[in-house]
Amino acid sequence: MRKPVIGVMGGHQVDEPTLGAAHRLGVLIAERGWVLLSGGRNVGVMAASAAGAREAGGTVIGVLPDRDDSRASPDLDFAIVTGMGEARNLINVLSSDVVIACPGGAGTLSEVAFALIAEKPVILLGFDPGPSLDEYRDRGLLTEAASPEEAVEIAARCIDR
Amino acid sequence: MRKPVIGVMGGHQVDEPTLGAAHRLGVLIAERGWVLLSGGRNVGVMAASAAGAREAGGTVIGVLPDRDDSRASPDLDFAIVTGMGEARNLINVLSSDVVIACPGGAGTLSEVAFALIAEKPVILLGFDPGPSLDEYRDRGLLTEAASPEEAVEIAARCIDR
Amino acid sequence: MRKPVIGVMGGHQVDEPTLGAAHRLGVLIAERGWVLLSGGRNVGVMAASAAGAREAGGTVIGVLPDRDDSRASPDLDFAIVTGMGEARNLINVLSSDVVIACPGGAGTLSEVAFALIAEKPVILLGFDPGPSLDEYRDRGLLTEAASPEEAVEIAARCIDR
Amino acid sequence: MRKPVIGVMGGHQVDEPTLGAAHRLGVLIAERGWVLLSGGRNVGVMAASAAGAREAGGTVIGVLPDRDDSRASPDLDFAIVTGMGEARNLINVLSSDVVIACPGGAGTLSEVAFALIAEKPVILLGFDPGPSLDEYRDRGLLTEAASPEEAVEIAARCIDR
Repeated sequence: MRKPVIGVMGGHQVDEPTLGAAHRLGVLIAERGWVLLSGGRNVGVMAASAAGAREAGGTVIGVLPDRDDSRASPDLDFAIVTGMGEARNLINVLSSDVVIACPGGAGTLSEVAFALIAEKPVILLGFDPGPSLDEYRDRGLLTEAASPEEAVEIAARCIDR
Repeated sequence: MRKPVIGVMGGHQVDEPTLGAAHRLGVLIAERGWVLLSGGRNVGVMAASAAGAREAGGTVIGVLPDRDDSRASPDLDFAIVTGMGEARNLINVLSSDVVIACPGGAGTLSEVAFALIAEKPVILLGFDPGPSLDEYRDRGLLTEAASPEEAVEIAARCIDR
Repeated sequence: MRKPVIGVMGGHQVDEPTLGAAHRLGVLIAERGWVLLSGGRNVGVMAASAAGAREAGGTVIGVLPDRDDSRASPDLDFAIVTGMGEARNLINVLSSDVVIACPGGAGTLSEVAFALIAEKPVILLGFDPGPSLDEYRDRGLLTEAASPEEAVEIAARCIDR
Repeated sequence: MRKPVIGVMGGHQVDEPTLGAAHRLGVLIAERGWVLLSGGRNVGVMAASAAGAREAGGTVIGVLPDRDDSRASPDLDFAIVTGMGEARNLINVLSSDVVIACPGGAGTLSEVAFALIAEKPVILLGFDPGPSLDEYRDRGLLTEAASPEEAVEIAARCIDR
């Protein structure tokens, strides 16, 4: 049995509270014994969540858009090098059991969209993907959390199912 | 000099007015002498816009997610078979000079997101991608049209630039 | 009914006779009324075959590895911009009805391999993919031609089937 | 510092000696403290090498071509789900520091080709990729080993560089 994998998505350039929440998410995911998966680069939500998970003794996988690992976060245990640019956003979510979306922009939006197409549960933590995904809210696949703690609680219920 | 390529994105399952608008878009794009590019499948906005362009004597390229062309619209002149699932959504927009987004769901949302990451102009024709892309509205890259005619007018200005 | 699509693969840096054969292939493909598909860049077999097809009034599609068309051959009618590096080699062959392999290196080798996995006929025109593909020779999927003319004759038989 | 990653490639359907060598490779890679990366499916060289590494207490990453993990080897620690078919062969080798190629067919051939394009060292262990890659032999990037033990010795020297 492999460990549950939680995909944490979010922006490259985000404010301090978002970085703090991403770091806290990483800590909580590691404390649960889950694997953290992200886009792997050394910026924003990717870097902060990886650092949190690493500090708490967790495991971090980064799925990089680049052809090499020169822009990878230093806190990755494993770097998947795709060379496919944003097409790797699909891999991020297909490889996750649950996706948590922190504040971000177009990249985060594409990941939320791809996760839902693949029928993965998505937990919004301060990110608004707009009205085009409302059918997934109605079906319970797209939910909202008010804190990293609540996001991880919801993720735990998704994994238990 | 290659002809301008207009990517028309939109849902698999859409209502009649949306199908009508997509068909009309196809006609108008063909009448301008532009190439229509879409996701290529034989459903929804993809099929309706392809039919419109074909009827008006235009050229249609479909970029398929599948490993073969068994689900392709019959109105394609050229089928690009990617075998990459939704990762092909990135190819759709990178291959377009301008993207027009009709009503749709998560797939359309991912295409709007990817187009803007790639700095392609996106014209919304009845699709709301939500607030996470507002920076692109501010920069003039993400605009709205009230009709197929207006969408094509805006596209023409984008191409002239 | 879409026109048959012939994928012409081959190296970036090749000798003059290879460039001549690639150009001749492009001419012959165009004269048959088929579409030429290649990797699209402005070098080697890609550029020479595109030029031949263009000069003979044919249609040329280039499937580019890059995120933009800045390195595209000037003889493309349509540029598919994938942003996926060599992963686009899979798209090249999935989008072709028949693949013709001119002399080349590792990229050409990957395309021959991918074409055969996808059960596409591959015609070798001066390229040796080695012994690991012998099962496909036995099955008649991998054949050899001594000239562009013969390659196009074999392709015609594949298309008729 | 992440651990070195060794990509082990090879066929779906192979003979018993090849399965034995793949299993032995997995054991040796694990004993070195390296990570084993493969195509992840529950067949052939992929499954045998994963089982060997798992039994020896190592870590195994599988990069799957499918949209889900239903065909994954039971011995993976981490499954990367790409949904991109054989395009994932590029990811396999970009994510590896060294590639070892066991006997296989077209898929293995594509991985050897992609690895060399990306300038990754490739060690052949009973696989013959043919003459089109000879330039890489001349440059020392493509070498041969007579046994799993020798392959791992060569890999160690590549990693030390």
